Amino acid sequence: MKFKLLIALLGFGILLAGCKEQHGNEGAGNVETSNAVSNEPIQPIQPAIVKNPKYVELGKKLYFDTRLSKSGFISCNSCHNLSMGGTDNLKTSIGHNWSKGPINSPTVLNSSLNLAQFWDGRAADLKEQAGGPIANPGEMAFTHELAVDMLKSIPGYVTEFNDAFGGREITINEVTLAIAAFEETLVTPNARFDQWLKGNKNALNKTELAGYQLFKSSGCISCHNGMNIGGNSYQKMGLVAPYKATSPAQGRSAVTGNDADRFNFKVPTLRNIELTYPYFHDGEAATLTKAVDTMGRLQLGRKFTTEENAQIVAFLKTLTGEQPSFKLPQLPPSSDATRRPQPFSD
Amino acid sequence: MKFKLLIALLGFGILLAGCKEQHGNEGAGNVETSNAVSNEPIQPIQPAIVKNPKYVELGKKLYFDTRLSKSGFISCNSCHNLSMGGTDNLKTSIGHNWSKGPINSPTVLNSSLNLAQFWDGRAADLKEQAGGPIANPGEMAFTHELAVDMLKSIPGYVTEFNDAFGGREITINEVTLAIAAFEETLVTPNARFDQWLKGNKNALNKTELAGYQLFKSSGCISCHNGMNIGGNSYQKMGLVAPYKATSPAQGRSAVTGNDADRFNFKVPTLRNIELTYPYFHDGEAATLTKAVDTMGRLQLGRKFTTEENAQIVAFLKTLTGEQPSFKLPQLPPSSDATRRPQPFSD
Repeated sequence: MKFKLLIALLGFGILLAGCKEQHGNEGAGNVETSNAVSNEPIQPIQPAIVKNPKYVELGKKLYFDTRLSKSGFISCNSCHNLSMGGTDNLKTSIGHNWSKGPINSPTVLNSSLNLAQFWDGRAADLKEQAGGPIANPGEMAFTHELAVDMLKSIPGYVTEFNDAFGGREITINEVTLAIAAFEETLVTPNARFDQWLKGNKNALNKTELAGYQLFKSSGCISCHNGMNIGGNSYQKMGLVAPYKATSPAQGRSAVTGNDADRFNFKVPTLRNIELTYPYFHDGEAATLTKAVDTMGRLQLGRKFTTEENAQIVAFLKTLTGEQPSFKLPQLPPSSDATRRPQPFSD
Repeated sequence: MKFKLLIALLGFGILLAGCKEQHGNEGAGNVETSNAVSNEPIQPIQPAIVKNPKYVELGKKLYFDTRLSKSGFISCNSCHNLSMGGTDNLKTSIGHNWSKGPINSPTVLNSSLNLAQFWDGRAADLKEQAGGPIANPGEMAFTHELAVDMLKSIPGYVTEFNDAFGGREITINEVTLAIAAFEETLVTPNARFDQWLKGNKNALNKTELAGYQLFKSSGCISCHNGMNIGGNSYQKMGLVAPYKATSPAQGRSAVTGNDADRFNFKVPTLRNIELTYPYFHDGEAATLTKAVDTMGRLQLGRKFTTEENAQIVAFLKTLTGEQPSFKLPQLPPSSDATRRPQPFSD
């Protein structure tokens, strides 16, 4: 383990550089963030800089629009609820016809900082991700074609798309570009830990600081590092001892086809972790205490004492940043030509 | 019909006075509105005057909190969506375990102005209404006891309840008082028609004005009048010819036990009607054109011409007021002691 930790620590520079490049290559590329100078392996989050406010405003409406689902009941915000840390706080999500999802919904907050999207990284960026749930029969159960037809039938949307995209035709490309642009604004700067990183040494108390030191010295930091404190690598769930997941998800191997990648998952961000319960890809850890205990045993081969666990939990609770702050959007009404939702047709 | 219309017109003063008194007697009594002086049978809506901002802020959180449902997935806002005219824009709503609701969800907008709540008026006011869906097995499927236990387990809520209610114990009474106080702020002043009522004669064009005149002269106004353009009386659905509803709802008779009240429903508000499709208690009218046609035939014994119908629809679209404008609330996180949602337990 110690050797692995050393390699991981040496690799930070590469990982972070990789993360930054990834971000710069994103489809929507709507928001710039920059690393603050820091000697710590975690960097503070910078507020989002909006490059294209028209994309963002349109994407915000689409994010809340239940008409992107077959039922007319489920929106992006249903499972990535911006009142609740960008999650649904359920083990696994509820989809069309009360389908039980196979995996825990990760937070949308700071997701633009991840090296890829979904637990298995099967979408390169937020734009690619946004198209997935719309057409997934167990989630929004719609099709891209029907979603675009719906939007084209609504005069308020037609005007706004024209305005944002200079009159070019509405396709799923424009829809997901706008949603991704909005999602890129959902960063959460100014957590107490970030204040500490920036030099306010009173921002953390002794217990929290002890938790951070232990977080580093015990090796949590080897996977949870960088600006998003995770999200920048794939790691095996159950490194020292196997994890008995209740989710059928196979992880990264489903994308690479490589059996060696089985149970490799994208390391989740720890930002806003107090808000994004329950934890792990199967949502089986209801509390931070349980999650820290399990991670210690299965990933680090270490049983944290009650005091150590509490210190780490105290540190983790300093990672809650400023939540997105915006007015609830008003959606343009359907027209007579808009196809009506079909919640009970199958 | 003409005699009935006359009686109805003569009765306005009584109806409106009754409506105002009703409003003054509401449980939460948090918002004051006042009638503007007008010679018309419709009065403009006044902006809400908030009497107790702590109730309102707490109630806003509760309104968006999915933890008031068994599944942790359904909030007040799921069916009375404040991005969509205070409705879900579905024929009938989706409840726990994808239950198909028996009736169309009425808008929460301006609902404080109604003489009672629900289509059959079975709740006297918004406070009484708010408790219904939480405990309805086909809606949020929770219990009042579990909802209160949940709130008591969340430090952020405990603090806010203490602050709003001076430290008295949290019960369903305080929960519904706060939700009702928030809902009373959801009035939509300054519709174009209200601007016209207040003297801006350019606020309506010729077609819209012709629509309003026809709305009055044909008798629509006999039920849709007052500040909320409805909401102040119960009337039979299918007065001249029977309405073949797809909903099993019996209407007012379910409350009074009086068979003469069968198919009597609370007259819905026409405010924001362009946003609150589909129409009628069974949601079977997808468009305003269809709703106006059906109302003309079944309630007034009159077949509106295409031009007349279009005029009335044009008038109805002037009734969209300023929509609620507030920041999406941030909900306090659950604690380790908070019971977790049970979306798939039955």
